[in-house]
Amino acid sequence: MKERRLRILLVGAGGTIGRAIAAELGARHAIIGAGRRSGDLHFDLADPAGMREALAGAGPLDAVICAAGNTAFAPLADFVAAPYGASLHTLGLADKLLGQVNLALAARDVLAEGGSITLTTGLLAEEPVVEGSSSSLVNGALQSFVRAAAIELPRGLRINAVSPGVVAESLDAYAPYFRGFDPVPAARVALAYSRSVEGAQTGQVYRVH
Amino acid sequence: MKERRLRILLVGAGGTIGRAIAAELGARHAIIGAGRRSGDLHFDLADPAGMREALAGAGPLDAVICAAGNTAFAPLADFVAAPYGASLHTLGLADKLLGQVNLALAARDVLAEGGSITLTTGLLAEEPVVEGSSSSLVNGALQSFVRAAAIELPRGLRINAVSPGVVAESLDAYAPYFRGFDPVPAARVALAYSRSVEGAQTGQVYRVH
Repeated sequence: MKERRLRILLVGAGGTIGRAIAAELGARHAIIGAGRRSGDLHFDLADPAGMREALAGAGPLDAVICAAGNTAFAPLADFVAAPYGASLHTLGLADKLLGQVNLALAARDVLAEGGSITLTTGLLAEEPVVEGSSSSLVNGALQSFVRAAAIELPRGLRINAVSPGVVAESLDAYAPYFRGFDPVPAARVALAYSRSVEGAQTGQVYRVH
Repeated sequence: MKERRLRILLVGAGGTIGRAIAAELGARHAIIGAGRRSGDLHFDLADPAGMREALAGAGPLDAVICAAGNTAFAPLADFVAAPYGASLHTLGLADKLLGQVNLALAARDVLAEGGSITLTTGLLAEEPVVEGSSSSLVNGALQSFVRAAAIELPRGLRINAVSPGVVAESLDAYAPYFRGFDPVPAARVALAYSRSVEGAQTGQVYRVH
């Protein structure tokens, strides 16, 4: 089978998973790295206007990958009934959830025919941990959104999500939340992004945990 | 087994599912109905301050049920990258998602020991339909949130969600979105709320589809 060289925008290129994706896919494709401060293009997931502008200036794209997105880790006891903006859920809703949904919508408008969008969710969608309720909420939303958006994307565009487990290289920061969970090397997580971009499925959640 | 008479706050008591819940649980328990304009207590899911005030004035409660929550049904093509507040996702995020999450958090602070919280999600979390991407997002978020919040609730409190299919009594409004789906009578959906309130499980999603 003949493989075509793709132009791939990789958001979060400087992160642990982003670097592993760049190593995996950069061997065969052109990677345009994006991040808040590092990479070829700079924008913030929580700033849709900056995101749209960056995508418009990125040149022709065959794939957009997001390996970025923040949520608040905090005890449920710290969450109180509050409106959007005053809630501890705001970070996750604005950044990892709406940021990635907006990236998908902006990508839809610029990707080449048959292009792909790959978002990042996480095992907390299915496996809860203490202090993880906001991450669970956000990850569950992303998985259901990807499944639904897939059936309405135009021009043969595809959308999938990758759900990483706790990444071995990030254990220093996250180990106390994930005792008993089997850490996954970032290089193995990166394979799922390759499968999404270089495969042909849509509406899938690729679980690496 | 001796059954205890519970005081149950039912949000959305005037809706199709709410009325069926009141019929099912009202036979054995005291129902305090709540709604935006009808019922014993008036508040809006999107107004956390009014919600907390209403709950504080409701007297001792053994269970809080939410059978309310709005989302936007619209083609994916109508959704564009936009910040919270300017997005078509805002209704679902503010009302059905954050509204119910806030209700759960406010209920946690007032429920009697061992009390229960039951939220409403829906089959779109798993089964996408055209124009349903925002509903899918919201429902997926709620299902993962419930599973996560369950492991951190204090004082033996429980939390579950009910995921109704398309309700037979609502087909007039929704049939075109759900061709080929098997409609579920509201009375059968109501049984799942009874199971959540009168059973002993937590962190469950009871699917009625």
